[in-house]
Amino acid sequence: MMYRTNTCGELSITNAGQEVTICGWVQKSRDLGGMTFVDLRDRYGITQLVFNMENNKELCEKARKLGREFVIQAKGKVRERSNKNLKMPTGEIEIEVGELNILNKSELPPFTIEDETDGGEELRMKYRYLDLRRSPVKNNILLRHRVSQEVRKYMDSIGFVEVETPVLIKSTPEGARDFVVPSRMQPGTFYALPQSPQTLKQLLMVAGFDKYFQIVKCFRDEDLRADRQPEFSQIDCEMSFVERKDILDTFEGLAKFLFRQIKGIDFAAPFIQLPYKDAIEYYGSDKPDLRFGMQIVNLTETVKGKDFPAFETSEYIGGICAEKCSEFTRKQLDELTEFVKRPQIGAKGLIYLRYNTDGSLKSSVDKFYSEEDLRKWVDIMHAKPGDLILVMAGVKNKTLTALSELRLEMGNRLGLRTKDKYFPLWVVDFPLLEWDDETNRFYAMHHPFTSPVYEDLALMETDPGKVRADAYDLVINGTEIGGGSIRIHDASVQKLMFKILGFSEEEANEQFGFLLNAFKYGAPPHGGIAFGFDRWVAMFGGQDSIRDFIAFPKNNSGRDVMLDTPAQISSKQLEELHLAHVKK
Amino acid sequence: MMYRTNTCGELSITNAGQEVTICGWVQKSRDLGGMTFVDLRDRYGITQLVFNMENNKELCEKARKLGREFVIQAKGKVRERSNKNLKMPTGEIEIEVGELNILNKSELPPFTIEDETDGGEELRMKYRYLDLRRSPVKNNILLRHRVSQEVRKYMDSIGFVEVETPVLIKSTPEGARDFVVPSRMQPGTFYALPQSPQTLKQLLMVAGFDKYFQIVKCFRDEDLRADRQPEFSQIDCEMSFVERKDILDTFEGLAKFLFRQIKGIDFAAPFIQLPYKDAIEYYGSDKPDLRFGMQIVNLTETVKGKDFPAFETSEYIGGICAEKCSEFTRKQLDELTEFVKRPQIGAKGLIYLRYNTDGSLKSSVDKFYSEEDLRKWVDIMHAKPGDLILVMAGVKNKTLTALSELRLEMGNRLGLRTKDKYFPLWVVDFPLLEWDDETNRFYAMHHPFTSPVYEDLALMETDPGKVRADAYDLVINGTEIGGGSIRIHDASVQKLMFKILGFSEEEANEQFGFLLNAFKYGAPPHGGIAFGFDRWVAMFGGQDSIRDFIAFPKNNSGRDVMLDTPAQISSKQLEELHLAHVKK
Repeated sequence: MMYRTNTCGELSITNAGQEVTICGWVQKSRDLGGMTFVDLRDRYGITQLVFNMENNKELCEKARKLGREFVIQAKGKVRERSNKNLKMPTGEIEIEVGELNILNKSELPPFTIEDETDGGEELRMKYRYLDLRRSPVKNNILLRHRVSQEVRKYMDSIGFVEVETPVLIKSTPEGARDFVVPSRMQPGTFYALPQSPQTLKQLLMVAGFDKYFQIVKCFRDEDLRADRQPEFSQIDCEMSFVERKDILDTFEGLAKFLFRQIKGIDFAAPFIQLPYKDAIEYYGSDKPDLRFGMQIVNLTETVKGKDFPAFETSEYIGGICAEKCSEFTRKQLDELTEFVKRPQIGAKGLIYLRYNTDGSLKSSVDKFYSEEDLRKWVDIMHAKPGDLILVMAGVKNKTLTALSELRLEMGNRLGLRTKDKYFPLWVVDFPLLEWDDETNRFYAMHHPFTSPVYEDLALMETDPGKVRADAYDLVINGTEIGGGSIRIHDASVQKLMFKILGFSEEEANEQFGFLLNAFKYGAPPHGGIAFGFDRWVAMFGGQDSIRDFIAFPKNNSGRDVMLDTPAQISSKQLEELHLAHVKK
Repeated sequence: MMYRTNTCGELSITNAGQEVTICGWVQKSRDLGGMTFVDLRDRYGITQLVFNMENNKELCEKARKLGREFVIQAKGKVRERSNKNLKMPTGEIEIEVGELNILNKSELPPFTIEDETDGGEELRMKYRYLDLRRSPVKNNILLRHRVSQEVRKYMDSIGFVEVETPVLIKSTPEGARDFVVPSRMQPGTFYALPQSPQTLKQLLMVAGFDKYFQIVKCFRDEDLRADRQPEFSQIDCEMSFVERKDILDTFEGLAKFLFRQIKGIDFAAPFIQLPYKDAIEYYGSDKPDLRFGMQIVNLTETVKGKDFPAFETSEYIGGICAEKCSEFTRKQLDELTEFVKRPQIGAKGLIYLRYNTDGSLKSSVDKFYSEEDLRKWVDIMHAKPGDLILVMAGVKNKTLTALSELRLEMGNRLGLRTKDKYFPLWVVDFPLLEWDDETNRFYAMHHPFTSPVYEDLALMETDPGKVRADAYDLVINGTEIGGGSIRIHDASVQKLMFKILGFSEEEANEQFGFLLNAFKYGAPPHGGIAFGFDRWVAMFGGQDSIRDFIAFPKNNSGRDVMLDTPAQISSKQLEELHLAHVKK
């Protein structure tokens, strides 16, 4: 016996007359007088089975008893349908069944296995194996496979080597929280799961593997925010004997290849490289969505000195110009004001200036500003009749963030953020260090091995806060898809970096000894990048959430509700590990 | 600046006259009168640099100061060598250096970075990043990459989907010991690391992914034997709507593809399928090395009844015939006797029968057997003049194991087990159950979801020990490379299986509830296989040990001596996990 000759997705009019055997799940069945129609589904599609009361009563009655999601095998002849469904690849044919075998029964599924399901999130997660039968989820997982294959094909074609780095590594206290794994053989000690293979890939550079990549699971024990997973996948990459340009060229190549293979989109021109400083200044964000313009304009100089209190007391005043929105209603403007006043944004208010189509001006601050004053706003913002200018004021960084949110909201309202348009860019020249007022020290913005930009080296001693990192992010449609940096390979620069970070030599050795030790034996100049694989696939799939691009994801509490884990383990297991649970 | 125009492995006589820049590590340097030669090494090869005292004294003196493993950049002109080394791909050329930049210095490495190193195992592991610079180790890692690429290419080409299954799953007490991961968010509970994605891939079959594969890390917290790793990689595969034949065909296809792509070997004929029973009977092993014959022959009937005590008291007597070994010396025979008497084998002794080239017979049991008796041995063993017959006796299973070891030893001595010859075969029809005298119950030989062979179903109730599993192993050169089975998809057979294994319904649900629950919603007929990826790569690399095919392996105590892990974690980390170390 052979279970099937064909799948449920491949038969077409050219197969008419053939005897076939297909297998799958019963999607639905309909009795129409003397006929019974069954839609049979597998991974590849749906094929219609026909049973005829007149030709074979017994068989037809058997078919009438089939429940949803029964697994069956049907043998029969392919024939042209009288009633064609041209929306389906198999919609021109049906199978006149001569033999029907029930391979397995099914209880009634807890939600409908349709593109649009009646199952809630929790139920879908608990019965994930049923959720995965639904085309939208199934197609996400198939897309993920396709992307991973294409990534590997491309990286291999340009000489990169995929090296599997270990999962059981050492805990490093700096950074996010590690998941740890108790050692039974050496009680009281632990492995840690990698947050990323950062140090291991740098060791591979020391080892001479000048082009490394890996699609690799990473782990972070964080309090989960929406759409974070405790385990996630990275496309992790590192190269030796390179500068920033080499890395950007290489991975722009990867990005373009993927867009071409997966989305059929060709990006001919080089990606824009936007300095971090400009990203903040013009978009209020280090991951700007460039699918639309609506740049932020600094109005501080222009609008001050007219006794409007909210402006006079503010460090910074900035605005955006929404094209063709001068006729926004009062209600719409109130909604926008509410939007920026929400606690997540926390702005005090929103000023508007309508540049009406007839050329007239109307603002919410007419009391303080003459028409001549307002003409200056219009000029500096390059507004055209019919546009709407929205202005906010306050502390600079907070106001820029608020303007960024307002800009994205306007982009949404104006339909400028469509899923099928993609705008990739590089954000470059991040600050190397972040000052923390609380602990009164600098922290590495990425990690302590990030190289400063060469020209800024002298600033390291005099004004470390001004030093730019030789770091870069790939940003697409307002999402950071990947990020990386040139690493420090010069021992004296590394020493200086640790000094600025307030690490004593002992502390540095304690945490990164194996890497610093390796660097003594000939570290090549190197740098790399890591991409959020789940995120990138979700973006190709046109969705914001990564969860449905992971076969078996965890919920927001880090639980797998299908497997029902984490769970208690036996006292014997705990004993073998020499561990006890401390109740609080 | 661009670091390099070429690698150290690609320049040849066709590049003569070109100005190039190359980077790498100083392999060695030699001063010969007015010339200094430096061998520069990178991942791709070695290129000779030449510095000339006469042309550029300063540069030459700089070159003379280069230490081993210094990282340098050299610019210069490719020229034909006067003294060619045709063993090296770059041996016809050298580079007359005009500019030399030291990119990084190196301390003297703790062992020589040569194909044959003076570094011991422990030192090599501690400085793994230096060990990885050595060609033999580097080439293993490159081979691993190549094999993984080819596996994915093939599986994708025949419609398999790579699905990443989670690493943080649920502990299942049956089987080997799990590594566990304490949950901080739900104190007192744990995730477990997968020993294999067995249940998850079966859920994927229920989900309709009818062709799944994954190259995936698996974890086992075992007391490590030689060449076992706590984390290892599998090529994990599962298919739906298939029988054994479909699976063997599919993965025989994969094996043949890999042999062709990686080793340039074509296996035209189908692989032999050897029943487990025959493997044991004729080779004393369920993973026989078929690179040579020398089958075990059951002599029990033939040799009994002649009052030789060792035979008369034995359950089983078996022998092998070593061709052209009749002239083995007394010393050689003594060595073989010592070999089988070692505690690892534990045989009582070894009987020999020389079938001399002149046709005469000489045995160690001439006292008990007439020439006529011994002729019968010769006949049943199909021995030819010049052959040596070796015979052992005792309990059947132990004696077969001992004969298997003796057979392999003879294979080694006779040079019949060469690394460049490969003999793949399927061992099939394993027993479904193993009886354990101690606990007085049956255990599943593979796992409780392994299907019995269909024809043996009736035996499940009457004589479970006789039931064959629908299971199969791929064995190559005496090593099990992979194994799998058809799974049970019929609820009533599964129930029976649990009954035979002594699981109550509650116990079965406790351990496998999520899978049994999933099976209620339409489980398709399915089966699969998993290959030891490290092992397969090592075999392609012609080595027995997997350790040098893993970039950063652990030692026999499960330690990573380079990272120095497992290690203590901070008391804060323990506190957050609500765990305490219990000292014994």
